Amino acid sequence: MTGAEVFFKCENFQRIGAFKFRGAYNALSKLSDEQRSRGVLTYSSGNHAQAVALASSLLGIRAVIVMPSDAPRVKLSATQGYLGETSQVVQFDKHEITREELGAKIANEHGLTIIPPYDHPGVIAGQGTVALELFEEVGDLDRLYVCVGGGGLLSGCAVVAKAMCPVCRVIGVEPELANDACRSFSEGLLHTVSNSATIADGARTPSLGRFTFPLVMQNVDEMMDVSESAITDTMRLVWERMKLVIEPTGALALSGLLKHARDAEGLRVGVVISGGNVDIASLSSMFHGD
Amino acid sequence: MTGAEVFFKCENFQRIGAFKFRGAYNALSKLSDEQRSRGVLTYSSGNHAQAVALASSLLGIRAVIVMPSDAPRVKLSATQGYLGETSQVVQFDKHEITREELGAKIANEHGLTIIPPYDHPGVIAGQGTVALELFEEVGDLDRLYVCVGGGGLLSGCAVVAKAMCPVCRVIGVEPELANDACRSFSEGLLHTVSNSATIADGARTPSLGRFTFPLVMQNVDEMMDVSESAITDTMRLVWERMKLVIEPTGALALSGLLKHARDAEGLRVGVVISGGNVDIASLSSMFHGD
Repeated sequence: MTGAEVFFKCENFQRIGAFKFRGAYNALSKLSDEQRSRGVLTYSSGNHAQAVALASSLLGIRAVIVMPSDAPRVKLSATQGYLGETSQVVQFDKHEITREELGAKIANEHGLTIIPPYDHPGVIAGQGTVALELFEEVGDLDRLYVCVGGGGLLSGCAVVAKAMCPVCRVIGVEPELANDACRSFSEGLLHTVSNSATIADGARTPSLGRFTFPLVMQNVDEMMDVSESAITDTMRLVWERMKLVIEPTGALALSGLLKHARDAEGLRVGVVISGGNVDIASLSSMFHGD
Repeated sequence: MTGAEVFFKCENFQRIGAFKFRGAYNALSKLSDEQRSRGVLTYSSGNHAQAVALASSLLGIRAVIVMPSDAPRVKLSATQGYLGETSQVVQFDKHEITREELGAKIANEHGLTIIPPYDHPGVIAGQGTVALELFEEVGDLDRLYVCVGGGGLLSGCAVVAKAMCPVCRVIGVEPELANDACRSFSEGLLHTVSNSATIADGARTPSLGRFTFPLVMQNVDEMMDVSESAITDTMRLVWERMKLVIEPTGALALSGLLKHARDAEGLRVGVVISGGNVDIASLSSMFHGD
């Protein structure tokens, strides 16, 4: 389809089913003994919640996960399944308080360290090991396509690429419906989106962060966006032809490559498949056009 | 879940999405020059049709694929997509003629060699490379679970296992709704089923064959069957937790292991995932119970 040699980094096979485990585990590993003994807190209803739940359980650290009361049951039960015995999920009503406010309040009361989903040096460094392993395994690449939500994965991978393979062109891909990072990148000014309806739920984050925005500006070569139908078509292609279960956000990077497919002819291209946590029961509605 | 160390041979990643490519390619490779120049014929509406289509195209051999006129469009178009230019699909009305009759008629007229889906030494040997590669890669195993339809994969793998790792217990797994091989194995007498409604379409074959039945009797240690709900549950488990797209038949071997899961505790177990060709659009109906 592309005429390129394409290397996929399959983070759908990662623990908890997505790259988020890397950042959470790395950030928790770097805590001081005192921080460890007090515990950590995060707010997320997605893969980061499961990542912190599992990493804290493996490291014997108490964790509090703040999650909206209307989070999908499947995500709630997955997170609870990974949590250690001393840890817990705290649910809240989105109409009464924001997750940041409630998170800060609980963290203050109990001396917990907050592990945010992307805007944190330890998290970013952890996500960068995705690119580190890919370069170590396949060698130099001409291009590397990475999806963008809050920019933790993209900025971590871009820092690694510039160190290990400076000629590699790093390209961030996000949904058209949530293209705040594209706009931020082209104007050098932080844009935000709110409540995006994109099917790629991992990219619904409102904006790049305090750490990720400058790292993206310095280390990423290009940003592009893709349509909702391109994301769905790519996800279906990967399911049907590559036999991999991937989530919509996991299809973003490949959608970016396929948008101008023949443009990569003859090149060695890396594509990060970010995760595979999708509700099987909801598939028929995703593919209802067929 | 099992306490065992489990090694999966993922034939859903094989060319055409199933192990069938191995047998077809091997059988076609062993044809004489004269047979090659005349061409081959097969009758199948499943993975074997696609396997012969691709193998013949790669080897530059003309192929005729006999397929019922009510075969699913997705299988018809997949087969046509793999076929070389000089080859063709011939469709027929199941109520007027059987595939064997029509196949024999066309093969006779044109001097084509028939490549049956399983009951053929070259096909069986090709399927056996599944186990060959698994033993070469992971070393000795205590058990090997393999699905059974016509017995090509099972008998090929069992022959390999007895040669490479004689202590390995080879276990064939088929659906309760099509358990002709289980009954044939326990009684030493060939049983048949017709028009089984099992979801595992690759195991709907009426019986073991002239070559596969004796090979199964000699080399397989145990046969077992699994329920339709066990097949669906296992398929869902593999999709959701292993992030692999597998077809119902591809879930049979693991269903066999999970039926008495703790019984394999501490063992090294091989499980063949036979294929991943499933119609994504039909998934919701497969999982409608949820």
